[in-house]
Amino acid sequence: MTRIRLATPSDIPLMHSLVHALAEFEREPHSVEITEEQLLRDGFGAHPYYECLIAEEDGVPAGFALYFPIYSTWQGPSLHLEDLFVLPEFRGRGVGKALLNQVAAAAVKRGCARLQWDVLDWNQPAIDFYHSIGATMLGDWRRMRMTGDALKALGAASEVTA
Amino acid sequence: MTRIRLATPSDIPLMHSLVHALAEFEREPHSVEITEEQLLRDGFGAHPYYECLIAEEDGVPAGFALYFPIYSTWQGPSLHLEDLFVLPEFRGRGVGKALLNQVAAAAVKRGCARLQWDVLDWNQPAIDFYHSIGATMLGDWRRMRMTGDALKALGAASEVTA
Repeated sequence: MTRIRLATPSDIPLMHSLVHALAEFEREPHSVEITEEQLLRDGFGAHPYYECLIAEEDGVPAGFALYFPIYSTWQGPSLHLEDLFVLPEFRGRGVGKALLNQVAAAAVKRGCARLQWDVLDWNQPAIDFYHSIGATMLGDWRRMRMTGDALKALGAASEVTA
Repeated sequence: MTRIRLATPSDIPLMHSLVHALAEFEREPHSVEITEEQLLRDGFGAHPYYECLIAEEDGVPAGFALYFPIYSTWQGPSLHLEDLFVLPEFRGRGVGKALLNQVAAAAVKRGCARLQWDVLDWNQPAIDFYHSIGATMLGDWRRMRMTGDALKALGAASEVTA
């Protein structure tokens, strides 16, 4: 039986291992720099950056969903689902759907007009699943990112006049 | 001369008009549902959803940038730039760059490892500009979204066991 529950600080080692397992699946196993200490500080401090749900099958951890509030200047407060992952041995039992149901319920409860997430364009099983539950793919948007020295250089060129 | 300053509640009508102008540019003029009251409540209440910078050229509003904190389970706290827009008559003067400098400075100041934003795949001038300042395009991610009745139906299927 699938049970979905909110993560607690004692789940941090589990969450850390699930984040690594998801990165392996996404073919970027070496991109995870976050530590258990950071996950604990950022998720369970005075101003949490995220919330996390743990899925269990008969008491055994089977997957997780991690999300946080964002903002749309067209529709207002929204929710972004950053990670959704089910361990391979628990797939095909509706665990991912159960997690998504719960995240959607959280979005509705907070009055969010939108729930959004990103999917890898080669992950066709996931794309088919998302379409089957009524999600829309925004095909014409691409993500840009700046990190490290490029980000610092860009910021250093600012002249604060505020 | 370009001046970048933090938006204040008195900028709400200006911000609302700039949001509409950006939606026109993005070929979705009818997608803006947000009201001035919502922008005020969400940006200037006890727990603001976003921050906004206004660019002025010789005291005349020329553009804006709107951003908020997000979270990466690989790198920790990050910043998402939701809107960046310069009015047509002020383009080509470095106003967008000045806004981006300031957003990057905010990201660095908060210890963010990443600054990210989205770009329309047909907006080649913007893509070229972003590449020129050191940003990377993540070509293999696509955005999924659920809204309205589909979102409510998904949430209604949840069984809260937390």
